[in-house]
Amino acid sequence: MDDDVAATQHTPLDAPGRSPRTDQAVQDDAEGDHGVAHMKWWGWGREGVGFDHRDKPRLRPFVLEQVDVDLDTPGGAVLDFADLPVPASRAPRELLDALASVVGARYVLTSAMERVVHTYGKSLTDLLRLRAGDLPRTPDVVVYPGDEDDVRGVLDAVVAAGAVLVPFGGGSSISGSLHPPAQEERPVVSLDLGRMNRVLEIDEESRLARVQGGVLGPDLEEQLGARGFTMGHTPDSFTHSTLGGWIATRSSGAQSDKYGDISDLTRALRVVQPGRTVVTRPVPSQATGPSVREMLIGSEGRLGVITEAWVQVHRLPEKREILGYFFPTFDAGVAAMRDIAESDAATTLTRVSDARETAFSFATRKKSRGVSKLVSKGLMAVLRRKGWDLEEVCLSFVGFEGGPASVKADQAVVKDLVKRHGGVVVGKGPGQLYDQKKFDTPYIRDFLLDRGALADVSDTAARWSQLLPLYRHVREEADRAFARVGVKGWIMCHLSHSYHGGACLYFTFAFRQTSDTPLVEYGVVKSAVQQAFVDAGGTLSHHHAVGVEHAPWLAQDISPAGREMLGEVFAAVDPDGQLNPGSVVG
Amino acid sequence: MDDDVAATQHTPLDAPGRSPRTDQAVQDDAEGDHGVAHMKWWGWGREGVGFDHRDKPRLRPFVLEQVDVDLDTPGGAVLDFADLPVPASRAPRELLDALASVVGARYVLTSAMERVVHTYGKSLTDLLRLRAGDLPRTPDVVVYPGDEDDVRGVLDAVVAAGAVLVPFGGGSSISGSLHPPAQEERPVVSLDLGRMNRVLEIDEESRLARVQGGVLGPDLEEQLGARGFTMGHTPDSFTHSTLGGWIATRSSGAQSDKYGDISDLTRALRVVQPGRTVVTRPVPSQATGPSVREMLIGSEGRLGVITEAWVQVHRLPEKREILGYFFPTFDAGVAAMRDIAESDAATTLTRVSDARETAFSFATRKKSRGVSKLVSKGLMAVLRRKGWDLEEVCLSFVGFEGGPASVKADQAVVKDLVKRHGGVVVGKGPGQLYDQKKFDTPYIRDFLLDRGALADVSDTAARWSQLLPLYRHVREEADRAFARVGVKGWIMCHLSHSYHGGACLYFTFAFRQTSDTPLVEYGVVKSAVQQAFVDAGGTLSHHHAVGVEHAPWLAQDISPAGREMLGEVFAAVDPDGQLNPGSVVG
Repeated sequence: MDDDVAATQHTPLDAPGRSPRTDQAVQDDAEGDHGVAHMKWWGWGREGVGFDHRDKPRLRPFVLEQVDVDLDTPGGAVLDFADLPVPASRAPRELLDALASVVGARYVLTSAMERVVHTYGKSLTDLLRLRAGDLPRTPDVVVYPGDEDDVRGVLDAVVAAGAVLVPFGGGSSISGSLHPPAQEERPVVSLDLGRMNRVLEIDEESRLARVQGGVLGPDLEEQLGARGFTMGHTPDSFTHSTLGGWIATRSSGAQSDKYGDISDLTRALRVVQPGRTVVTRPVPSQATGPSVREMLIGSEGRLGVITEAWVQVHRLPEKREILGYFFPTFDAGVAAMRDIAESDAATTLTRVSDARETAFSFATRKKSRGVSKLVSKGLMAVLRRKGWDLEEVCLSFVGFEGGPASVKADQAVVKDLVKRHGGVVVGKGPGQLYDQKKFDTPYIRDFLLDRGALADVSDTAARWSQLLPLYRHVREEADRAFARVGVKGWIMCHLSHSYHGGACLYFTFAFRQTSDTPLVEYGVVKSAVQQAFVDAGGTLSHHHAVGVEHAPWLAQDISPAGREMLGEVFAAVDPDGQLNPGSVVG
Repeated sequence: MDDDVAATQHTPLDAPGRSPRTDQAVQDDAEGDHGVAHMKWWGWGREGVGFDHRDKPRLRPFVLEQVDVDLDTPGGAVLDFADLPVPASRAPRELLDALASVVGARYVLTSAMERVVHTYGKSLTDLLRLRAGDLPRTPDVVVYPGDEDDVRGVLDAVVAAGAVLVPFGGGSSISGSLHPPAQEERPVVSLDLGRMNRVLEIDEESRLARVQGGVLGPDLEEQLGARGFTMGHTPDSFTHSTLGGWIATRSSGAQSDKYGDISDLTRALRVVQPGRTVVTRPVPSQATGPSVREMLIGSEGRLGVITEAWVQVHRLPEKREILGYFFPTFDAGVAAMRDIAESDAATTLTRVSDARETAFSFATRKKSRGVSKLVSKGLMAVLRRKGWDLEEVCLSFVGFEGGPASVKADQAVVKDLVKRHGGVVVGKGPGQLYDQKKFDTPYIRDFLLDRGALADVSDTAARWSQLLPLYRHVREEADRAFARVGVKGWIMCHLSHSYHGGACLYFTFAFRQTSDTPLVEYGVVKSAVQQAFVDAGGTLSHHHAVGVEHAPWLAQDISPAGREMLGEVFAAVDPDGQLNPGSVVG
């Protein structure tokens, strides 16, 4: 979940008693003496932090009207960890001994909590299955290597044992790329690189850093920031995802207009494969045949374990601002973003919400703060006098960085283009708020789920000329799907991540669970959205990866022959299918 | 040869009688009724066009001093086409009939000239072998498909016949990726896409064009320009290389700072493979596993035939300028380029020659034109007063495009950084000259070869922090190699193609042929330069591809495991090695 929903004002609060209950002793085990912290076993983010609607007075009526769910319904405890039917570990003694001889017994764990934490990512499907106690298969053992030699030793042991290896990253996947296939008979080892979390080297002259794959976003930025640098990669999952995970899933951060996608940021890799290690050089560009680097990026664990990468870093910018804008329609906003991408202005992010997402943003505002000032009756009256339909207003953000003169010039170019498309400048307030709260959004999904609403996201990318037709097609198909389920559903969207030739569209949808088979209901809507993406010329995902959940659309996206090529590469590197089997190509 | 040597003033002139003699009837056959024109069978560029030194009074003494070759030596006719020992075509009748039934008999040719034209690219090795009459193997037949269906039919016929297919592009390869292995027993088909030369579609809103793979640079730009667009891709080979060839070899053009390398410009591909066709979508970014697009880019014919691509295009810029600068040392120039790459200034090209290449540029100037004004005694006196060692002066170019305000601001930023590194602004004159003459440079190599001088280029890329150590190491190793050959050799260099984390270094070297085994002498120097690249942290080539000539350094560059991965991909797509065997991985 690499992007946020809207300029909401979620303040994560303690939410005791409303979450699945965790036995403290078991939880302690999950944060055992390996020193690696994890997210809640049952949902997003840190234990004790959650979303609360009670300081956002307009949200309850909004959600009640749009998806027929009352947020004041108490979110009951869903499940007690002790009640989870956790299958016993099938790891043979010899494998455990071999792993312990590599990394030390302290870093080889088979407790129920460790194995459950490493079973799923955080897709809605994952959360629903966990809440349903659906655990047909967990990893049999979790291993925490301390360095690349450990990774090599673990992989050798796995290969020798005829076992299976699943690299875990931060566990934030929302495409189902972490859980072992239910029918997997071989022992399954989950590899958690959480101890490999250091910036090893900064080449300040070249603005490149050599970094271990297991580092989490905040730890990475802290180490870089101490030297005056930033990587600038801020996906929505930032606080709980790792460099290796970003690379393995082709992540993209909110500021990709300036910093690039992870495939641009990653200049070289070390990847441990069965019997060998691929090492590429941090050269800026090269004509050395098909790009091995680009083969390893996005490999989702199927081509080995990413232990280290050289990534681009930038000196912290002199000035940094995110400005807000309003457009009279989504069409006008999208056209403006396109023109900005073509202009001489350098931006860090370009983003425009459709009218629905804008309305949702307004509904999540607290009293007397931020956006609320902007949507004051006064401003709205001005827009009405300009002839705007206030139901269609679209909120936009554009980010700027650099020296003051450059930022000023860029803002002037953008202002001119915004006005040319009928928009108005709102100013700094909403942008600051968006910037502060951007990592809080994922918490809302668990909160809604507790109250009987299924909510999720799907992202795509397409050419500029196809974005609006795609947008309309997705909305129609989602509405059709809601009708098939028999619910009043909600779908909203924003454009983000502008490129020369197109942009990303990021959809969020929600509806009330009406049966005891939420996975089926969810599947109807999710499938409709995904099919609409590929039918309208988009890609199956801009930055959420394939995993198993998007795999059904891969051949339609990159052609059957393209999908075959990926399967051929995986089979060549890993002939016995021991590396994260099932992901990407099924 | 995707970049130029220096800001030289080569005026290609008719050079009758000094080139290998071509029987007119045979040559007509090579430009038969298929309508596709080719370069000289024996060298670079158009028949009747060549380099001449006689209007450049300083060049003869310069070359005499540096490489002991007298340019006034008449370049005698090297070889008569009729004397070439062209092996007979081995194409079986059934294969020729099958090919004719696909594309029509008119487009299936087996003449000696057609086959010789399609045997080699334009590497120095290729030219030396041709001049020596060394033709152990030619293609057995040359086929000109008219569309993708033809390509499919040809490939099917090749696969069915157990033959070999070599896609030709424009034939400008300088890495030896076109000629069939000498020991190849199977029939060899050269596929020339010269008829597939159209821009099929321009999506003006998305600034993307769908283009056939066989189009040459000038034809492409003419079709785009008629609609107000440019691709902006201008490698040195521009006039005689094709879009498909650029993609297959990971080309980069002089203006890559703005427009990107071909891997950035190419957003989607259609590639005909044995039994299937890979089709990717022109989406701006996607998280669909390992990048199939990036696997096909750089595949040098080993993964099929690139029939079509979606490429980025730009509206023609309002303003375009290339300014000249002088730096007191190469170190200062490189440091300035690095700072420019980090600055807020947008540039189209950043380039600085070392002192030797600068001296060569000065030596190629005509009387009373361009650069000569700049190196007037007056300017030199000023620089001397500033304390410069005039032997160390380095010429630099930086290109700018955009609206007038943006160009002005960018030039101001660059001027400030140039001065910070001790440089001075020279102005527009030399930049205009460089821009006008940039595609003429490759002609000089044949001219030198005619007069007994072996000259060639090698390019690399490395991190900013490693560029100067690499530069010094290459110069040392080249000098050692010259000593081993027993000649006074010359090597010069420029930096070009700046990126966030590094840049390209482009070397040109020359020495007098002293034995009747020029290939051996050349091999000593070329190998030393290539080995120095990889020993000093660089890549084997920034934009000249691998072919067979750079293949010995591939494992050192991308690691043995990386090279194995490439071999595995090739073997999976083409299990019987029928697609351009020998290239990239040997």
